[in-house]
This record gives sequence, C-alpha cells and structure tokens, in this order.
Amino acid sequence: MEAVKLIADAGLKAEICSAARGTKGDIDAVAKSGADSIHLIIPVSDLHIEAKLRKTREQVLQITRDMVRYAKDCGLIVELSAEDASRADVEFLKKVFATGIEAGADRVVACDTVGVLTPERSYELFAELRRSLTVPVISVHCHNDFGMAVANTIAALRAGANQFHATINGLGERAGNASLEEIVVSLKALYKLNVDIKTELLYSTSQLVSRLTGIYVQPNKAIVGENAFTHESGIHTQGMLAHPSTYEAIAPELVGGTRRLAPGKHAGSAGLKAALAAMGLTPTEEQLKEIQARVKSVGDKGKMVTDADLLAIAENVLGLSAKKAIQLQEITVVSGNTVTPTASVRLKLNGKEVNGAAIGVGPVDAAINAVKKAIAEVEQIHLEQYNVKAITGGTDAMVEVVVRMRKGNRTATAMGVREDIVMASIDAVLGAMNVLTTDYNNKS
Amino acid sequence: MEAVKLIADAGLKAEICSAARGTKGDIDAVAKSGADSIHLIIPVSDLHIEAKLRKTREQVLQITRDMVRYAKDCGLIVELSAEDASRADVEFLKKVFATGIEAGADRVVACDTVGVLTPERSYELFAELRRSLTVPVISVHCHNDFGMAVANTIAALRAGANQFHATINGLGERAGNASLEEIVVSLKALYKLNVDIKTELLYSTSQLVSRLTGIYVQPNKAIVGENAFTHESGIHTQGMLAHPSTYEAIAPELVGGTRRLAPGKHAGSAGLKAALAAMGLTPTEEQLKEIQARVKSVGDKGKMVTDADLLAIAENVLGLSAKKAIQLQEITVVSGNTVTPTASVRLKLNGKEVNGAAIGVGPVDAAINAVKKAIAEVEQIHLEQYNVKAITGGTDAMVEVVVRMRKGNRTATAMGVREDIVMASIDAVLGAMNVLTTDYNNKS
Repeated sequence: MEAVKLIADAGLKAEICSAARGTKGDIDAVAKSGADSIHLIIPVSDLHIEAKLRKTREQVLQITRDMVRYAKDCGLIVELSAEDASRADVEFLKKVFATGIEAGADRVVACDTVGVLTPERSYELFAELRRSLTVPVISVHCHNDFGMAVANTIAALRAGANQFHATINGLGERAGNASLEEIVVSLKALYKLNVDIKTELLYSTSQLVSRLTGIYVQPNKAIVGENAFTHESGIHTQGMLAHPSTYEAIAPELVGGTRRLAPGKHAGSAGLKAALAAMGLTPTEEQLKEIQARVKSVGDKGKMVTDADLLAIAENVLGLSAKKAIQLQEITVVSGNTVTPTASVRLKLNGKEVNGAAIGVGPVDAAINAVKKAIAEVEQIHLEQYNVKAITGGTDAMVEVVVRMRKGNRTATAMGVREDIVMASIDAVLGAMNVLTTDYNNKS
Repeated sequence: MEAVKLIADAGLKAEICSAARGTKGDIDAVAKSGADSIHLIIPVSDLHIEAKLRKTREQVLQITRDMVRYAKDCGLIVELSAEDASRADVEFLKKVFATGIEAGADRVVACDTVGVLTPERSYELFAELRRSLTVPVISVHCHNDFGMAVANTIAALRAGANQFHATINGLGERAGNASLEEIVVSLKALYKLNVDIKTELLYSTSQLVSRLTGIYVQPNKAIVGENAFTHESGIHTQGMLAHPSTYEAIAPELVGGTRRLAPGKHAGSAGLKAALAAMGLTPTEEQLKEIQARVKSVGDKGKMVTDADLLAIAENVLGLSAKKAIQLQEITVVSGNTVTPTASVRLKLNGKEVNGAAIGVGPVDAAINAVKKAIAEVEQIHLEQYNVKAITGGTDAMVEVVVRMRKGNRTATAMGVREDIVMASIDAVLGAMNVLTTDYNNKS
C-alpha cells in the first residue's frame, strides 16, 4: 500500500494501477493508496480454484460479483484479471468475465499465468473473448516460460485484445513477463503501427531498470542487449560496411542503441582494416591476412578480442617494436577493515621511472588511483567504463576485467584476466592506456 | 576449415555441417574439412544482391546453379541457404530454390537474417514453399531481433518446414538465433511432440556453453535462466506450497533445473514460515507478520534478501540476542605484482579471540583463506558458491558478493555489499558462517 501510494503521489502522467487479490482487505489497501485502478486477481482454472483457493467454481463466481462491486463502490476503475485463464475451461472463463462485467468491471484481463499459450492458441482465445464479451477493454498478460510471451501478446492484439501487460527487460516471476521493448518495437517496425512511445529512450530505460533491480540483461537480448547491434562475422561486417540495412532490420538509433563492429574469431578482413586504419596503421593485404589469422586464433581460445589485443597483434605482424609507453615495475596494495586501502606503484613511462601512491575505497580503486598519480599525462585519459564479468565459482576463480578508456576522441578497450582482481584491473587499465598513448600516424 | 575439421574428427554421433559462401574456395574448404554437409549461403534479397554482392538476380541464379553442382561434385550433402529470404521477392526466392534443387540441392533453408518475420508471416512463407517445392527437406533459420525467433520457428514447422536451426542459449549474431532449449521444450510440452532430445541435460548444457563462451544467461531467460523456476511473490509461493503445478507449466526436473522459493519484497507469510522453520524458529502469527514487514522493507530498498538477512530480522523480532558466533576484529591484506597475496585476521569465536594468516591467488582468496585458518570449526563448513555480480561503472562502484555455504545438510546464503571487494567477501562469508553455526533447535 505504501509503495503504491508513493507512486500515486509522484504526479506521473499515467494511470496508476495496483494488483490485488479478491479480498476486501486488499481492495481497501488499493483504495487508500490513491491508485486510479485495480487489477483484481481472480483464479479461474480448476487447479487454482481447488488446490490454492480450496473453493468451488460457484464460490468463485460469487467472489467475483461481490469484489468487483466492492471495488467499484470504492471508486476504482476495475480491471478484472482471470488468473491462469489459459489453463481454465473457456466456458467458465467467459462466465467469470460476464459476471464481473455485469457487476461493473471496466476491463477484463486473461492471464497466461504459467506461459503455456502459443500464438495460435492466444489468437483463438482472444478472438473468442472479443466475440462473446461486451466489455470495451480486453487485456492480455503473458509470461515467458517458453520464450513466446511477445508473440503471444501480439497474437492476442491481432485477435481483438486492445491492452497488454508488459515489463521493461521482460522482468517478472520465473522467466518473466512479455518484454515491453520487444512488443513496442515489433508493433512499430513489423506491423507499422503508430505507437506513442519514445522508442529512442528504450535502451537507457532498460539500463536504468537493470541497474536498479540488479537483474542483468543478457548480451543477446533483443532490442536492448549489449550485442543487439553488434556485428562480428566477416560476412556480416562486410555487408554492414556496404550498407547498414543488410544486417539490421532497424537502425540502433531508433531505440537509443549503438552499432558496433567487433573484432573476434569470425572477423573478416574488411572490418579489421577499418579498425586498424583508426589506429593509424595501414597493413598490406598479406599483413592483413596474417593479422586476421592471429585475431581468429585468439578468438578461438574463447577470448574477447579487444583493441589492445588487435594493436599488439598488428605491431607484431608489421614488425613495429611494441610501443608500450607505460610499463609496470612494481605495485603493492594494502587493505583491510582497519586500514584505508592504500597502493604504491612504480612504472616506466617512456623509459623513465615514475612512481605514485594513493588511497581508494577498496584495493582496486587504490591501485588505479596510484597509477593515475604516477602519470601526469594520464590526466587526459579518462576511464569511461570499468566492467568485471560476474564471477562464479570459488574465491580463486578467474576474474575478467574489461575497460574502455578515452583520450580526446579516441577510445580503446582492453582486458585483464587473472585470479587476482587487482592485477587484472591494472593489466586492463595499462593495456588501454598504452593503446591511447601510441600514435602511428605521427611516428611510423 | 581447421575448426570444422576438429569437430568432424571428434567422432560425434551427428551430421557435421559447415556454413560456406557461394565460392569454390569456401566449398573446397568444407570438402577438405571432412564435414558431411554444406550450408551454402546465397543472398536472395535485392538489398543483399545489389549492395553487398554487387551482382544481378540473373548472376545469382547462375552462381546458385554452379555452386550447388560444384558442392555436389565434392560429395557433400547440399543445404541451399537463401540469405535474407524474409526480405526477398518470394517469386525470386522460389526461383533460386527451384534452380538449386534442379542442380541437386538436397535441402533448402529460408533465412530470416535480420529477424523480421512474425509467426503469421513465417507460416505463410513456409506454407508457400512447401506447396511449390519438391525438395524433401525445408529448413527454417530465425534471428531474434524482435524476440520472436522461437515462435517464428515453430510457425514454420507447423506450415511444413521439417528442419530448424537453433543454438544453445539463443547465441548468434546481434540478438542471436532461435533458442534450442525453448523450441525443444515448447514442442514437447505445448505441442505434445515426441522430441528425441535428453531434455534433462538442457540446463547443464546451457551452463557449459555460457561458461565456455563467456556470454551469460539472464536470470529471467526461459527454460535455463537462474530464475526460470524461482518463485518470490506471496501469491505464487503460497500456491507452490499447495501444489507445484499452480505456477509451473513443467517440472524443473524435465530440463535439469531446480525449484526455489525466494524471500524478497513480494514474500508472503507462508513461504517465510517454511524458511524460518528450517532454521529452528517458530514465530507466532504476530511475529511472523512483523518479520514479513521487515523483509519487505529490505526488499523495497532493492536488496536481495538472503538467509542471513532473514535470520537477523527474525532474531530481532523474536527478541533473541543475535547469536553471532564469529565476529571480525581485524583483517589486513597485502597484494601486488611482486608479493604473494597475504592476509592476516583476528576474530572472536564464541567470545574467544582466534587468529590466522594465509596466502591466496589474490587478495580475496587470501582473506577467505585466513578466516578458514583462524576457525577450526569452519573445516566442516564448505563454500559452495561465490558470486560477484557483474560490476559496471567505475573502480569505486559498489560490489555485491553473494555466497552459499554448506554445513552437513544445511545451507545458508549471505551477501556483502561494499565498494571494497575484499570486505564485501568477508562480510558475506562471515554472514553465512554465522547462520550455519547458529542452531535454535538446540538452544532456544
């Protein structure tokens, strides 16, 4: 009640709707919260009625009638929601809805509570509901247990449903609910419907929700995944360089995303040539072939190929002595519950020894701060992103740190892989710094 | 060629098929690799033909004829794959297929290269192909850019396709391809087809692929996500305690998964009561209500509610003085590139001071090893899982460490959240140890 009240009081340009069970206590709480409408959940499958509610169908009809009336009397817009509708007897489902509509329900929702609908079954069900009910709004609520929540939702809309339930990133119980971003962009791009949603905010909204809930989005998630507009295979990157529509149905800008051509085990020569040109390197065709082979070999080991890897490979193939401006000599970090995390570092910067010491919020932060202190030039280099891949296993598991750093309009990615998170972070940061302090345009 | 050769030589009970472009060089490589069949990619949309290949439709027909014949002459089973088929002129698509079949193609594949099919368009397309082609095998290859790859694949199978392309975890370019586990379990559970796949290995296979590729599976992924069989909301957990089918379409065992009832902001009293009973605590109804309110309040802050949190809340509500057997006094960790990560720790164990020192592969490992050294009793306690949530942001970002520890047949989860990964790990490990060394069955 308090949570819904906070939302209702936020002054949002939205109808605030709260879920509730079919009890007076729940309905009272919704009314007190200041919500505009109630999503009144009435179980309708025999399994739910018998095993969970321990009631009969007749009793459920009575509850529906009484609770819809009670909620209407409380001044709420009533959305009567049939739980487990997709596993219920359709005749009984229609009876529950008819009873609720007679009692004043403004909308009805058929819930695919355990995600067992298929697009064709969803179409059938909602066509039948639209044919037999007089209510203006029929809504669909799908779960994604079999990966078809989006298709099932759209099938229901095609059959006559005119409201749908969806969540950002497809969050929800178990495998979650239908993903809002996938439905909206499908309706817009595939069904050419005018959807009144600022689709260009979908990516940032997805990121915000992921950060706040702590539930991450997989890289290969449709629309908002990190790789949704990333192209790696040679055939694909070559096509993308020729025409961006060859391997993209929508431009990433439509959803606020970014296109990326990634080097990797499937990398083709055209994509690598473009990436090397950006570093000031112009290999011959033969050198390019060798670079491609080595990139593939790194990728074959299951490793991500970063800009630092690509530079190291290219330097080696082109016979350039590796221009590591910064070389680590010594680093020591002390941390604990009664000491301020402190690090000291000794580096060679263009052959000259420099050192620095710094504190931080933890050992990693202290170590990176010490590196920053030691190198004045580094002040122009900004750590844009610091990612540690989720670590699973033991405390001795391998840690993978990926960083993206920027100097002016150049960026560089680099990775560190170690069992020690401090050293992996140092490896990644120094790797990216070395890419950014190397400029073959001026010197080679 | 070398990669496919390694697979072909592995003696797998499978037909090994290799993708290839429509060039003699690619086809020769497939033949040399020892693959049984070739997935021969021929672009068929005008966009791909003109922008990428820079050829004409007539030339594409000629290439199709020549390359299918060439591949057949190499002794390969030929799967003629029409790239970007879903955006091609259907009449031209059929012409390409007819040309290839006449030249000896054994199978044809229509590719939804950028994922623009919908279930109804997929059905139409494959019904038309089945009507007009004489080839025995028609295959479907879907991408998941709009989240409908699984539904589109199944629609094609219903329309007459009799082979499908799929990948574990739905991996693939951009948002990936159709997910094998979702299609297989849908065909089995929703369409009641007899699928000759050991579905009980799907979860472990998914985990293996995720580990080897480094591409994580989101918790709310259908079938194989960590939360696919996790129930949190009060309505759901109460239902699950009454009958497991109320909120599960399939039993987790079918796919090798595990059911979990999680405490959290939506937790209901029935689920919490069961969890507390396992700790030896039997609160009154009123106490239970207060515990539930506090669990909700922790969950409302966006935090996961662990067993350690639940125990701390229950101890407080029941007026039990917190039985923290283990209390941290002092910990110091030293690490770097020229020192072996070393930690020393001073603890109070049941009021008595103990200490220990240990080395490790990194600062976290050294710290946890020092705790283990300090406490003899801990030898019975085993760290089953150590998870660090992916860290994104800066080196001063909050780190969330979750551990699961076991002592005999009891397990406990606990979390540490800090900017310092060493201290977050210590918090989590000591939290779980304290749950496991507390036994209210014997003492309260």
